[in-house]
Amino acid sequence: MSQVPDNRLDGPSLQDIIGHAKEYGFVFPSSEIYDGLQAVYDYGQNGVELKNNLKAAWWKAMTQLHDNIVGIDAAIFMHPLTWKASGHVDGFNDPMIDNKDSKKRYRADQLLEGKAEQYAAAGEAEKAQNLLLEMGRLLSSEDLVGVRELIIAENITCPVSGTSNWTEVRQFNLMFSTQVGSVAEDSSLIYLRPETAQGIFVNFLNVQKSGRMKVPFGIAQIGKAFRNEIVARQFTFRMREFEQMEMQFFVRPGTEMTWYESWKEQRMKFHQAIGLPAAKLQYHDHEKLAHYANAAVDIEFAFPFGFREIEGIHSRTDFDLRNHQELSKKKQQYFDADLDENGKPFGNYIPYVVETSVGADRLFLATFCHAYTRELTGEGETAKERTYLKLHPALAPIKAAVLPLVKKDGLAEKAQAIVGSLKSSFRTVYDDNAAIGKRYTRQDLIGTPYCIAVDYQTMEDDTVTIRHRDTMEQERVAISALKEKIGYEVAIERILEAI
Amino acid sequence: MSQVPDNRLDGPSLQDIIGHAKEYGFVFPSSEIYDGLQAVYDYGQNGVELKNNLKAAWWKAMTQLHDNIVGIDAAIFMHPLTWKASGHVDGFNDPMIDNKDSKKRYRADQLLEGKAEQYAAAGEAEKAQNLLLEMGRLLSSEDLVGVRELIIAENITCPVSGTSNWTEVRQFNLMFSTQVGSVAEDSSLIYLRPETAQGIFVNFLNVQKSGRMKVPFGIAQIGKAFRNEIVARQFTFRMREFEQMEMQFFVRPGTEMTWYESWKEQRMKFHQAIGLPAAKLQYHDHEKLAHYANAAVDIEFAFPFGFREIEGIHSRTDFDLRNHQELSKKKQQYFDADLDENGKPFGNYIPYVVETSVGADRLFLATFCHAYTRELTGEGETAKERTYLKLHPALAPIKAAVLPLVKKDGLAEKAQAIVGSLKSSFRTVYDDNAAIGKRYTRQDLIGTPYCIAVDYQTMEDDTVTIRHRDTMEQERVAISALKEKIGYEVAIERILEAI
Repeated sequence: MSQVPDNRLDGPSLQDIIGHAKEYGFVFPSSEIYDGLQAVYDYGQNGVELKNNLKAAWWKAMTQLHDNIVGIDAAIFMHPLTWKASGHVDGFNDPMIDNKDSKKRYRADQLLEGKAEQYAAAGEAEKAQNLLLEMGRLLSSEDLVGVRELIIAENITCPVSGTSNWTEVRQFNLMFSTQVGSVAEDSSLIYLRPETAQGIFVNFLNVQKSGRMKVPFGIAQIGKAFRNEIVARQFTFRMREFEQMEMQFFVRPGTEMTWYESWKEQRMKFHQAIGLPAAKLQYHDHEKLAHYANAAVDIEFAFPFGFREIEGIHSRTDFDLRNHQELSKKKQQYFDADLDENGKPFGNYIPYVVETSVGADRLFLATFCHAYTRELTGEGETAKERTYLKLHPALAPIKAAVLPLVKKDGLAEKAQAIVGSLKSSFRTVYDDNAAIGKRYTRQDLIGTPYCIAVDYQTMEDDTVTIRHRDTMEQERVAISALKEKIGYEVAIERILEAI
Repeated sequence: MSQVPDNRLDGPSLQDIIGHAKEYGFVFPSSEIYDGLQAVYDYGQNGVELKNNLKAAWWKAMTQLHDNIVGIDAAIFMHPLTWKASGHVDGFNDPMIDNKDSKKRYRADQLLEGKAEQYAAAGEAEKAQNLLLEMGRLLSSEDLVGVRELIIAENITCPVSGTSNWTEVRQFNLMFSTQVGSVAEDSSLIYLRPETAQGIFVNFLNVQKSGRMKVPFGIAQIGKAFRNEIVARQFTFRMREFEQMEMQFFVRPGTEMTWYESWKEQRMKFHQAIGLPAAKLQYHDHEKLAHYANAAVDIEFAFPFGFREIEGIHSRTDFDLRNHQELSKKKQQYFDADLDENGKPFGNYIPYVVETSVGADRLFLATFCHAYTRELTGEGETAKERTYLKLHPALAPIKAAVLPLVKKDGLAEKAQAIVGSLKSSFRTVYDDNAAIGKRYTRQDLIGTPYCIAVDYQTMEDDTVTIRHRDTMEQERVAISALKEKIGYEVAIERILEAI
């Protein structure tokens, strides 16, 4: 993490988003009646539908559109050696330092980065760069004493106490651990997985063999992961419990850069297909690569707090499979019967891996932020502000609301009958409470794309009006046409076709 | 748990099921390359699709078919006071006893139940009953010394060492715990939720208010839960990490038994709608009620190891909401504006709750066991055994396989083009490897309902044959009709309409 420019686009503040998410049943603080649990959130009745629709779109984009990608669902609990092989036991640490006066704890690297940013802001670019370089050198050689000395030499003080009365720097592992097994001699320390990727790697051969998969092929997975984040913040952007949508694509060594480029493009198309505009998306190449990668790029979205990662695409080499092979003593090889330029089979190898990894909660937040729309309707003095969620119809929590103009004269029953005829096809609700304008607004606020009004004409000719959320335009259609017409628009298929 | 009769129906053994599940990519042992993690399993490429389809069917049956039921997705991490209120911190224990010679640990109550079963099998029904009564008395008064004395008095010995050299009896809590937060003074012990229900209760008012819900209404949730089971066994039936599909239905006190009966019926219909036959399902009333319930019944399925619970329907009274109110000091009341018989509003009350709780992994296992079909085809000496999965088309992992009769003369390309035209609508695969009979078998084994064969006639008139999995009958249809015809059959909507 170095300096992040303020790329704020016009739009809602994060506070607007958090407020709307809570008020309209998208996201609630976890265990709120007990004053919440930090950096953990619950999805409410509309949030869960939006998130499920995003997950379904990703899942289908992976496993339906690609004949050579299949899914799995590995458990959160894994054998502890998994995390030895992946490097998480030894390397998944943050360097922490405490101020003895305030008793507050900080990430040592973030303190130094903050100082470098101050230099940069003051026009001392060289000083900033030298500090970051020195920090990098100390951290990579695990010289924690040196890191502390650097913090003191730079006169960095605690923002709370204002003193530089620092403890030593210690490594803090981000994995949550728990004890499994009740029988004393059989119980053991296991970790909550900090990433879903390893669940795919340890199942690589099981899937390849039982599914008769041929390289190149991919394995996709959606699931929870857990990190004991020091500084969890920015709503659902960085949580201690979060959900990943990862796909590991296994390729012949030497072909990984072609696939890396291909996935980089395909994944950008996906984000646009669900409705995120090109102007709010950008690539961000990693300057410093993780130990397992030979190429890495993020797809970033313009959140209210700036451009931030929603997906990473990484060329992970054979790092993971090779380490699992070494530690498990089980060959993680694939026999490639295809012929090389000399007419001989490529033979046995450990495949290289290109990974695409989306933060499901981040994608949710990006979609929600972008959908949140405030605009003026009407003109002059009668102009009014209108707020609505401009969600892709396939992502909207509720697809249609059926609203009788009045409750009497059989209109309510007619409206209920329409709900009954549509509800096994898509989520349809009934609302007869308050004036119809207020009911439209209610649906706008949660992103319902279609409101179906039942009026007196309906009783005569079995037609209704469909009111469109974004344009507020109304059209008259036959009741008998609703199921197919709306059903078509709200199908995830529409997203898949746009990729 | 008392004596379980052997209700084994004709069908596969559990070993057949475990073997088939692994070989064809439904369920793999977790972290198998590290010799597995006990009582934890991973879903493979076909298993995840079947399980996801079951989850989708349940979710839609709850939230689409009922205008007054909405979903949520609460986090696994919850505030620790949640489990104080629910009774899990103090009461979610098993009484354990160790044999000092074998070092093996047992559940004390299961040792005594085993003895009672021996009495019963020997025709000494009264002795059996008295033993169980005495055990119940001791456990409910938490007299663990008395439990140990009873085990010794009954001459119960360890099956491994053969001795009665027992330790004292201790309570063992089934919740997994972990430490959250890195800042020393801020870190705290939290639990992995042992049930999803509490995530619904703590969000009761958030959902009720933001969704403007009126009693009676329900909140549905699908999610992982964790229990440090002493004796985890029977494949995915009892795991340490498992998934629940729960719905809590909030009702006016005094009306709960009507709703209890209604949900009891509705839930049975659901299981039949997904394809489980009435003959393999039964109700089992709880003889001993949990501390929070005033009525409880299980829906049991005939597994290869006997009738066992796949779903529980419980009338939970206001136990949970009342305890949360007490501990959180936040009113958990609902104002009911409906008028009672005296014309006055029912007013404020804590709703009563009727819960329906399905084990998703158990429902998966039930569906898989029932679908597993072995039958003879042909007659006399040429009769052959055929194995296939008779899954509801909406539940099948793959909906259609397109198989060119031969690879040459453009048939392969034609088949690929058909896959391309269908894949955004439903999961369709291509297979040109081996004789067509072998390819049909391959699809049978994973339950694919439709095989589409491309032959020379296809090249002339754009028709194909559809081969039906269960009957093996073939019909000739136009390529242009495939999408609608198969799309109709494989939609979850078909299940919803059957409920």
